[in-house]
Amino acid sequence: MNSSFRHIGLISKFGAATVGATLRRLIDYLQARGLEITLDTSAAEHVPDIPLPSVERPILAERCDLVIVIGGDGTILNAGRSLAESGVPLVGVNLGRLGFLADVSPDLMADQLDQILAGEYAQEERALLHAIVQRDGETISSSDALNDVVVHKWDVARMIELEVCIDGHLLNTQRSDGLIVATPTGSTAYALSGGGPILHPSLDAIVLVPICPHSLNNRPIVINEASEVDIVVQDGDYTHAQVTCDGQVNFALLPGDRVRVRKKAQSLKLIHPPGYDYFEILRRKFGWGQSS
Amino acid sequence: MNSSFRHIGLISKFGAATVGATLRRLIDYLQARGLEITLDTSAAEHVPDIPLPSVERPILAERCDLVIVIGGDGTILNAGRSLAESGVPLVGVNLGRLGFLADVSPDLMADQLDQILAGEYAQEERALLHAIVQRDGETISSSDALNDVVVHKWDVARMIELEVCIDGHLLNTQRSDGLIVATPTGSTAYALSGGGPILHPSLDAIVLVPICPHSLNNRPIVINEASEVDIVVQDGDYTHAQVTCDGQVNFALLPGDRVRVRKKAQSLKLIHPPGYDYFEILRRKFGWGQSS
Amino acid sequence: MNSSFRHIGLISKFGAATVGATLRRLIDYLQARGLEITLDTSAAEHVPDIPLPSVERPILAERCDLVIVIGGDGTILNAGRSLAESGVPLVGVNLGRLGFLADVSPDLMADQLDQILAGEYAQEERALLHAIVQRDGETISSSDALNDVVVHKWDVARMIELEVCIDGHLLNTQRSDGLIVATPTGSTAYALSGGGPILHPSLDAIVLVPICPHSLNNRPIVINEASEVDIVVQDGDYTHAQVTCDGQVNFALLPGDRVRVRKKAQSLKLIHPPGYDYFEILRRKFGWGQSS
Amino acid sequence: MNSSFRHIGLISKFGAATVGATLRRLIDYLQARGLEITLDTSAAEHVPDIPLPSVERPILAERCDLVIVIGGDGTILNAGRSLAESGVPLVGVNLGRLGFLADVSPDLMADQLDQILAGEYAQEERALLHAIVQRDGETISSSDALNDVVVHKWDVARMIELEVCIDGHLLNTQRSDGLIVATPTGSTAYALSGGGPILHPSLDAIVLVPICPHSLNNRPIVINEASEVDIVVQDGDYTHAQVTCDGQVNFALLPGDRVRVRKKAQSLKLIHPPGYDYFEILRRKFGWGQSS
Repeated sequence: MNSSFRHIGLISKFGAATVGATLRRLIDYLQARGLEITLDTSAAEHVPDIPLPSVERPILAERCDLVIVIGGDGTILNAGRSLAESGVPLVGVNLGRLGFLADVSPDLMADQLDQILAGEYAQEERALLHAIVQRDGETISSSDALNDVVVHKWDVARMIELEVCIDGHLLNTQRSDGLIVATPTGSTAYALSGGGPILHPSLDAIVLVPICPHSLNNRPIVINEASEVDIVVQDGDYTHAQVTCDGQVNFALLPGDRVRVRKKAQSLKLIHPPGYDYFEILRRKFGWGQSS
Repeated sequence: MNSSFRHIGLISKFGAATVGATLRRLIDYLQARGLEITLDTSAAEHVPDIPLPSVERPILAERCDLVIVIGGDGTILNAGRSLAESGVPLVGVNLGRLGFLADVSPDLMADQLDQILAGEYAQEERALLHAIVQRDGETISSSDALNDVVVHKWDVARMIELEVCIDGHLLNTQRSDGLIVATPTGSTAYALSGGGPILHPSLDAIVLVPICPHSLNNRPIVINEASEVDIVVQDGDYTHAQVTCDGQVNFALLPGDRVRVRKKAQSLKLIHPPGYDYFEILRRKFGWGQSS
Repeated sequence: MNSSFRHIGLISKFGAATVGATLRRLIDYLQARGLEITLDTSAAEHVPDIPLPSVERPILAERCDLVIVIGGDGTILNAGRSLAESGVPLVGVNLGRLGFLADVSPDLMADQLDQILAGEYAQEERALLHAIVQRDGETISSSDALNDVVVHKWDVARMIELEVCIDGHLLNTQRSDGLIVATPTGSTAYALSGGGPILHPSLDAIVLVPICPHSLNNRPIVINEASEVDIVVQDGDYTHAQVTCDGQVNFALLPGDRVRVRKKAQSLKLIHPPGYDYFEILRRKFGWGQSS
Repeated sequence: MNSSFRHIGLISKFGAATVGATLRRLIDYLQARGLEITLDTSAAEHVPDIPLPSVERPILAERCDLVIVIGGDGTILNAGRSLAESGVPLVGVNLGRLGFLADVSPDLMADQLDQILAGEYAQEERALLHAIVQRDGETISSSDALNDVVVHKWDVARMIELEVCIDGHLLNTQRSDGLIVATPTGSTAYALSGGGPILHPSLDAIVLVPICPHSLNNRPIVINEASEVDIVVQDGDYTHAQVTCDGQVNFALLPGDRVRVRKKAQSLKLIHPPGYDYFEILRRKFGWGQSS
């Protein structure tokens, strides 16, 4: 075995019943290879009987050479935000259903990890976004996102009005249910449901997708990933807006609040089994080529 | 004057500063013609100095031969829901910006009302929807809608899962931000932003428009207005769903709740100046024919 | 057997190799029941060795009580246009792949025909369109369509300009690749690819779907089936337009030509096995409910 | 005057009546500044009475420091393809209607050229595509495109089937009216009508937009501009396909033909007046911010 992956961190979906069995098989597999294992606290809860060290994620990221995440794309989004800064690479094992990020299947896990641990793998850099909220000139909140930063209405079925600037230049003022700012990784998630295009992961780009825009000629726009996007919530009688990162982290917004989105300096290192083919995953996820 | 419109009810947008002047001009105009006038309470607030009877809407609808509503489409939606049952016809005066429903402009108000009061006008029947919410077999809420009944998520940026049946037959189970059930009147409102088609007002039809559906091949479907639509909120970890009528009336939903939508028995009688041309309104609202 | 179907006409896809076997099985089946059989000339070519009368379609329609069409939806479109006028009902047998119109599968053919011949079936009326082309005030061409009448550019990758009127009222003048006028039956065909909605077959409606419109706020519009649609090809340097019915019948157009589309007086009687469920066909054709 | 633009080439729209006056004003303006002028043959036809040298475009590109093109975006597309290879910069003067490429208005022409000739301007590099057609392994045609390379059906209203590969990896096999491969420049042209996103001109990307795809989950995809796109026309009974560059150059395709599209090595140098704001042009062209 000639890979540099000697200390493996394990993160798993919280509370899913099917995770336990896969996690145990994975621990057996890694122990049989004599690798050092550290669990994060969510994984440790699934296997209380196995005596392995369990730590918080920042420490896990520090200690390990590779982190294996068991769960769906949602679990990887969560783990990815925690790990990107540390630079530790991540590989995703799904629970039976192919994910865009979790592309190792439990059935092929042993064979595919054999290859990865032998140093045969494909590594990608996936960009993250960093969003801050400014109120009266002060930054009052910040979060990362691997998929998307979404500014959207909540509570009532009314549009909100957003002023959008790119690198300080006005793009437009739009009335809509909200605006999605997505990475290439996020382009196949919520942004796609909103009518956005697919962005190849290798693209240095960000896509802005309006959600149910009032104006019919408001369209998705793809901009350079080096751009800074400012979204200012406009005043209104019934403005109930919030910003959400990866559909997982929420923050309530007031009129006048500015959400500033930039590419995060650090990217997520995502590892795939050799032969990884992004287009094949698209074909399988979207059923392309199946007759109808 | 040979029309049967002798007792005119007046309803106006609540709280809009520009309404007062138009309302006063309208009262002068009607009094000069010797017509009887009754205000609803929202209109009375704009002209506290004018001694005219002011009543609640159900009484207004009972007493009057014609109701004139001053405001935008939102004001007419609100009035239309209150008046449809009574059968009293309604004419909409906008505040300077052409509406789909409020198509009499303040500038042409006198001339156009001259014609309408002389019996020269176009009358349309606009269908309404009636929505009820059933929980554990009991009806716990009900409301009318002139534009649309929308079942949608709120609070979090997560999809909800809805099972949709038409006349007792399963259409599909869909994950999305929600589902819009719209009348032809509502087809140019929120349903259009969601990607739905325009339905001509004379069409006996209802359109179902999924909001940001997860599945890319989930598409708007137009069904017969005689159909009964059942939408059942499916269980989920984070289901926060509500139903909203015309973007104005909300009701919180729990998993298992059934929203049943049918065409309301009574339609709204909507009156237009002679020469009313629906397609011209479309062209003006959508800027069709303007070069770009 | 208590049905009135005693003389069965058979029509089949032209030239498809797989048709022969299904056709022979069908003939055996019908002969075993003592039913009279007449072939149209396309079916006769597949079974030159079987001594059955073969006639042109208008005569077939006249003589038979029921016509069975073997092939895909394209074959049924073709047959439907020929048979609608006569009023003879039609049932569609597919070649293994479910069609919207050809919904009897070869595997279940015997059982399902047993039921139909026993008088147990669902019958629908499917509307057709009738299109005429007028040049200098004279009608120079006409055709029926079960799916759609499409006015579109050809030869070059340039837009054409069309003026569209509905019941004599201007809808708009649009630049696009063309315009689809579709029946509910056609709403799940080309019109859907162009971004149109699904129309339930019971709907008395026609949908107009612009193909790649230049103006982003040009949208599909659903109108009453009683409406008359006029499409006039506008002048242009490079206008190469034609009108196509069901993707099968073409006619070249010149600037100034008017294509007038109306609902055809006669509908097609389409017969399904008992338990026919349009929504189930939608679900199967679009893969609704399959996880992705 | 401190710019290096001393020899100006002039190209104009062919045959447009309004061009002549603008061209004469422009020649007066340039002669008054003592600049050397050369016309291309299309411009020379508009001013046969003015004794200026007129040459073919390749020679014009060689001789001049700057080329001014008078006309709409179509004229600039044509000129841009001719000039890109030479590296000579281009500025576009429109005929009264703002273009994405022709953004100098005739009214402001003198002032804006003053600035440009004084060396105050914004210069952009706009990518072009280079398409070749391969048949039986041999290249039988090639062309450049500034907007888009489109493989599409013609003649009949039938879909064609295309196999699409990116950098040798299968993307999918799709049935549609065709496929648009567009540059950022072309993203606001035909690709937008086909449902594609807007790509900022600074983006190193290409977008693939299917035209009326049969499969509803076939979506626009944005890929790296360094990618090689192969489109192979699949066999079919009625395949009539062709490839078109910028809507101006056509070439007929046979089943089996491969259209290979790559970014062209040379870009077009496009010059704008100082203060050029791409987003402002988007707002004006799409009417963003105008109430409806």
